[in-house]
Amino acid sequence: MATAISNSFAIGIDIGGTNTVFGIVDSRGNISYRGAISTKKYEILEEYIDELYNSLQPLIEAAGGNEFIKGIGIGAPNGNFYSGTIEYAPNLKWRGIIPLCDLITKKFGLPSALTNDANAAAVGEMMYGAAKGMKDFIMITLGTGVGSGIIANGQLIYGHDGFAGELGHNIIIPNGRLHAGTGARGSLETYCSATGVRATAIELMEKNPEKSSLLRKYTPEEIDSKVVYDCAVQGDELAIDVFNFTGEILGMALANFIMFSSPQAIILFGGLCKSGDFILNPTKKAMEANLLPIFQNKVQLIFSELKESDAAILGASALVWDLK
Amino acid sequence: MATAISNSFAIGIDIGGTNTVFGIVDSRGNISYRGAISTKKYEILEEYIDELYNSLQPLIEAAGGNEFIKGIGIGAPNGNFYSGTIEYAPNLKWRGIIPLCDLITKKFGLPSALTNDANAAAVGEMMYGAAKGMKDFIMITLGTGVGSGIIANGQLIYGHDGFAGELGHNIIIPNGRLHAGTGARGSLETYCSATGVRATAIELMEKNPEKSSLLRKYTPEEIDSKVVYDCAVQGDELAIDVFNFTGEILGMALANFIMFSSPQAIILFGGLCKSGDFILNPTKKAMEANLLPIFQNKVQLIFSELKESDAAILGASALVWDLK
Repeated sequence: MATAISNSFAIGIDIGGTNTVFGIVDSRGNISYRGAISTKKYEILEEYIDELYNSLQPLIEAAGGNEFIKGIGIGAPNGNFYSGTIEYAPNLKWRGIIPLCDLITKKFGLPSALTNDANAAAVGEMMYGAAKGMKDFIMITLGTGVGSGIIANGQLIYGHDGFAGELGHNIIIPNGRLHAGTGARGSLETYCSATGVRATAIELMEKNPEKSSLLRKYTPEEIDSKVVYDCAVQGDELAIDVFNFTGEILGMALANFIMFSSPQAIILFGGLCKSGDFILNPTKKAMEANLLPIFQNKVQLIFSELKESDAAILGASALVWDLK
Repeated sequence: MATAISNSFAIGIDIGGTNTVFGIVDSRGNISYRGAISTKKYEILEEYIDELYNSLQPLIEAAGGNEFIKGIGIGAPNGNFYSGTIEYAPNLKWRGIIPLCDLITKKFGLPSALTNDANAAAVGEMMYGAAKGMKDFIMITLGTGVGSGIIANGQLIYGHDGFAGELGHNIIIPNGRLHAGTGARGSLETYCSATGVRATAIELMEKNPEKSSLLRKYTPEEIDSKVVYDCAVQGDELAIDVFNFTGEILGMALANFIMFSSPQAIILFGGLCKSGDFILNPTKKAMEANLLPIFQNKVQLIFSELKESDAAILGASALVWDLK
């Protein structure tokens, strides 16, 4: 069995709203071949699958053909592990319930497995990253949105319907900031996503008109966590306040998550992590402050060890090794 | 194996701050023999264990002796499943880390297992109650405090340190009501425990001095969820408002929990459940309102099917059937 796995490969496919990236991965997490196609270009699902097949087939041939491939793992928004379907994904053009695994398996002649992108990232982190050897951890992805993947007892928590782990939509500030996509108020994603950080920066500038700040040189559209970081590095107080405010809310949310599943670690992933200690320190402070003593100073708060460009492919491919 | 289990018994012990109750239970959940001793009377742990032994031994003999007993399951505050220890339980007189399982096993000559009372209740509900056959559910105990036990993938979630599932201490209203025990503000327990319901009743009476209410006939100390229920049944608006407010906060918290582990059901247990639809309806309404559409109208919100007096013993005893 060990020999078979070490000689074989897994395909990892990450389906984003804009692009789909894929690669052929060995059991140690090395990506041997990679490629990408547009997602949004293909409104008709069958054409998308055809294009994916045409782009992947040469890579499969280069790896030795189907007999060296154990299967295909896919990360996609609203991906349901149990049914292998994508269900009502707001950022994809294909509407309703899409039987993606069935279509992929039929087209490629290979077994396939599907889950949402954050769950895939968590599995990737457990196999190849900062969570190697951990049986209980939570992965939080801080990007355009806020996603999560939860591992407990060494297993991904899928829930009864395959949709567990939507922690970005937990309500942290009741009646707080409006989430344009969901209509909910005060969810974690409204504060700790890229859009959330921008909104906080704009809010703080408006609330403190007397305070000079490097951030004022930028248009609202230009402001992202990278810009806020660049200002913070130069000692800009308002920029630092943006991270402190974001960290305070993130830390409070993480404390709640810890009191749910008592993980060994929380692993942060995504664009906001590039802000390093500016976001990590206030987050950790708020997290500890909101924990029961029994949980304090026990949980590692760390950044992902996977390269952002690789993580999506690695995570998706990692699903394959558990395929029966 | 099936025969062996059907011929044997498990002991269930529930350690509360005031009393300890115990019983001998068969694999179908029938309690054959039961008893109780004081917990708080025994400041010295060894004397408590001696008294427990002296009270249980006649029951064990009546059941046929140790060879018919598979083991001892214990529910206790801050009970750690992995280590079999009670750690820093604020409501018990024994300080520090108590190696309870070691002491019990040595005294009784039987294997033992320990977890916190809400976790034990969840296991009991899965084996004998409303969660029979479910692999993903959350048990919320609404009593003096608010506790929880979480089952995912058919297993109790213990977390890396054995302390998972302290959902009563999740912060639901940041900077909200003070929790006298923990010093935290706005935790679920400050609103949805017995003390929380009383505090809400008093607050609403003070905030609406012009509003007549049957609740005003009672002293603050007399008010509990039973009194509020009795008033609500008579159509008292303020009493109904107490449940609506409590349910709104509980429902919001439950929505967050659902977006974590996507359970098939949430099972409510404890004193507050006696208020029936007065608490269930506003809770369900707030729960659905705070869920992402993908989770709406999917999760059963139900009351425990175990008798409150039996649940603690049954839950603790249920731990035994998994003992190796």
